[in-house]
Amino acid sequence: MQQADIGLIGLGVMGANLALNIAENGYRVAVFNRTAAKTREFYEEAGSLKEQIIPCETLEELAKNIRAPRPIILMVKAGEAVDEQVAALKPFLAREDIIIDAGNANFHDTVRRLAELGPNDPTFVGMGVSGGEEGARHGPSIMVGGTPESYARIEPVLTAISAKYQGQSCSALLGPDGAGHFVKTIHNGIEYADMQMIAEVYGVLRDGLGLEPAAIGKIFEKWNAGPLNSYLVEITAKVLLAVDRKTGKPAVDVILDSAGQKGTGRWAAIEAQMLGIPATGIEAAVAARSISSLVSQRGEASKAYSGLETAKLSDDSTAFVDALEQGLLAGKIAAYAQGFDVMAGASKEHGWNVPLATTARIWRAGCIIRSQFLDQIADAFEGSEGKNLLLAPAFVERMKSTSQSLRKVVAEAALAGLPVPALAAALSYFDSFRQARGTANLIQAQRDFFGAHGFKRIGEEGDFHGPWSEPA
Amino acid sequence: MQQADIGLIGLGVMGANLALNIAENGYRVAVFNRTAAKTREFYEEAGSLKEQIIPCETLEELAKNIRAPRPIILMVKAGEAVDEQVAALKPFLAREDIIIDAGNANFHDTVRRLAELGPNDPTFVGMGVSGGEEGARHGPSIMVGGTPESYARIEPVLTAISAKYQGQSCSALLGPDGAGHFVKTIHNGIEYADMQMIAEVYGVLRDGLGLEPAAIGKIFEKWNAGPLNSYLVEITAKVLLAVDRKTGKPAVDVILDSAGQKGTGRWAAIEAQMLGIPATGIEAAVAARSISSLVSQRGEASKAYSGLETAKLSDDSTAFVDALEQGLLAGKIAAYAQGFDVMAGASKEHGWNVPLATTARIWRAGCIIRSQFLDQIADAFEGSEGKNLLLAPAFVERMKSTSQSLRKVVAEAALAGLPVPALAAALSYFDSFRQARGTANLIQAQRDFFGAHGFKRIGEEGDFHGPWSEPA
Repeated sequence: MQQADIGLIGLGVMGANLALNIAENGYRVAVFNRTAAKTREFYEEAGSLKEQIIPCETLEELAKNIRAPRPIILMVKAGEAVDEQVAALKPFLAREDIIIDAGNANFHDTVRRLAELGPNDPTFVGMGVSGGEEGARHGPSIMVGGTPESYARIEPVLTAISAKYQGQSCSALLGPDGAGHFVKTIHNGIEYADMQMIAEVYGVLRDGLGLEPAAIGKIFEKWNAGPLNSYLVEITAKVLLAVDRKTGKPAVDVILDSAGQKGTGRWAAIEAQMLGIPATGIEAAVAARSISSLVSQRGEASKAYSGLETAKLSDDSTAFVDALEQGLLAGKIAAYAQGFDVMAGASKEHGWNVPLATTARIWRAGCIIRSQFLDQIADAFEGSEGKNLLLAPAFVERMKSTSQSLRKVVAEAALAGLPVPALAAALSYFDSFRQARGTANLIQAQRDFFGAHGFKRIGEEGDFHGPWSEPA
Repeated sequence: MQQADIGLIGLGVMGANLALNIAENGYRVAVFNRTAAKTREFYEEAGSLKEQIIPCETLEELAKNIRAPRPIILMVKAGEAVDEQVAALKPFLAREDIIIDAGNANFHDTVRRLAELGPNDPTFVGMGVSGGEEGARHGPSIMVGGTPESYARIEPVLTAISAKYQGQSCSALLGPDGAGHFVKTIHNGIEYADMQMIAEVYGVLRDGLGLEPAAIGKIFEKWNAGPLNSYLVEITAKVLLAVDRKTGKPAVDVILDSAGQKGTGRWAAIEAQMLGIPATGIEAAVAARSISSLVSQRGEASKAYSGLETAKLSDDSTAFVDALEQGLLAGKIAAYAQGFDVMAGASKEHGWNVPLATTARIWRAGCIIRSQFLDQIADAFEGSEGKNLLLAPAFVERMKSTSQSLRKVVAEAALAGLPVPALAAALSYFDSFRQARGTANLIQAQRDFFGAHGFKRIGEEGDFHGPWSEPA
């Protein structure tokens, strides 16, 4: 029997779909699952793709059935399961082989795993995969961290199975070791911010303008034909228009307002903090999910603060709905600017040289935040790698034309008592960033007053103290 | 010669002042510094306090000169220096002795250091000290993490040297191991948020109302006689009224608007993220400092966005200045609510049982955020430990009377292009927290749509999927 081009361990939803994707693209894939029954079941259900699949019941069998040098994708639960799987697999692999962790790993683990490998061990690649079940099956966005040699070996398969944006593959090598998993983490952080800003606008339309889900869905449907065009806006329209089968009510109206989180948004926020790079849009989104989960406290607070009920907006004209569209776009630009800045900072800190234009390009299709907007971001980074998106000429123009709307939305929401934490954070970020003379001079004065920390004077070298610390 | 009651290692600014404070309070203190010359110099300059001080040139000498069981305060640079000092000191100490790390340690290090001690090693106490140089000399706020036995041994000295609020000592045992250093970290995080909100209000007065520093100083001076009464508001007035000796200009006008940070604000934000508890006020403050340090990028952005210059406020009446006072108070309440909630969460997570009322009480004097406001917080937590401050009846009333002003400030600043990130985050937090029906239902719908994550239905047990995932 002809050997497989690649191996895959872990036939959960993501792994199984990725294996079928590989097979469908004409590559032979050897598969293994800890529970052999699952491997058999997967094979039996593979239909016409069976001939491209080699089901294996042991790791030894898996290794034997892959053409050397062997690339083997791990799609197991992030964390200890990856370490266990690597340990179990190593005895059957050679130095030239490549273990590819395609789970949602914390990039620190990826760096550690690489560092722990001995000189005769196989190499290790950390690969972020975005797009959910559907993406895994028909084309995800693939963010790879590893050596150029490793990537060259797996590039044909990854290019084939990845999503395509106008014919261009959404797979790329983004840097060494942890770079791929780091970029995936920030992708998820941006996804949190994007979703939260959409939810805030939904809240303003629902509670500020008193619109029903279907009417709001229609608005998002319309927006999806404009500059906000994106997968998230598209599915927002769909879920708002969906009807609950059981009650006949709008589906969103029967869903508890308590959001789950699996930790990647939090990781993104923590990494940004460690780097000292603002990611207040992501932080606002993570906090919003945390507050949403405090259902009983919110109920109690709502009673305690009765009398301060949400006011209807003073401006409920069509113009205000247009302002929401423009404001959402402005907020999105600021949040993406932060996300890309965090990647630029991490790239510098870790010496990764993550290509930001390429990153934006492989996010244009396949992943959850896919959009035309990312094509514009990719263009903006061409030739100005590492610069803040808010300084790219095309985005300066867009912010100039949309930021007034964001102001209006944040101000109206503030007055009406409607929470817009991520949009407000985006506006604050924009206004702080474009302020030539900020207010940190006061903070420096305070710090010098109580802690003798010193400060710089405008236009002078050296450290100074204020008159408060000198004898009069 | 009579033995010392306590030892102190590290005669930098903080250590030297703490030693003098101890001596002045009638306790004998044996001191040691790595550089013996510094020890001698310290002793020579101690004046009438000399007789209470035993200068030591070796660690052996230090140990011999302290009455057993020996408490020894370390006031050395946080990090490796502490580990080195502990290792160097251990050979001269007995099991009953107590090493007290009084530096700005990361609480994870404190927990680790305790765990690393052997059964015959001395015990270890992590002690947060706030108040800067002045506090160390005349009465700091002291936050202790350790065993009741250790605390009992050092309590008389700590009570004597600590700040007093209406006669009550600002020193307390707050829990085991890392509890004291953790509380100190959150203290600093709250300090960041408090300072940032003051700076934002200063910015609105300066750029929105066009006031000169002295006029703004007078406003803060007046506010310091009202509900905002606090050390930070007091020194804000002082620095705003101060005149630069060199130029004759207002001192704050010659200071570069680029704020430094030593990391504790960032730690606070990271710990809050790890616990999943919102600390958006602290995050906004840390981000504001980071953005402030991007001086050249801000200059570039200011040029790129010329034409969007800051607008004067539409309302510049005295009433608006009053709204700033009330809005700052509301913002402060929300930011402190977050900080105390993070401590409650950490206390639960680590099994510390940190007494929140006591924590507020020992912050009423000595530390940087000292204020009457903390006395009110202490009262609010009496009998409702662990509850969010926004649910304490006294604070419900205050938020009811001040939140409208915060809305007005955030809205006016948003429209005028003045950044108020921490105040806006505080308002968003308040409005999210008191919202019985939030917007996370939409986020859950989106997550179920793209990732089949499932959701809860209102009033039903179990997990459900939306109609989008079922065959029609």
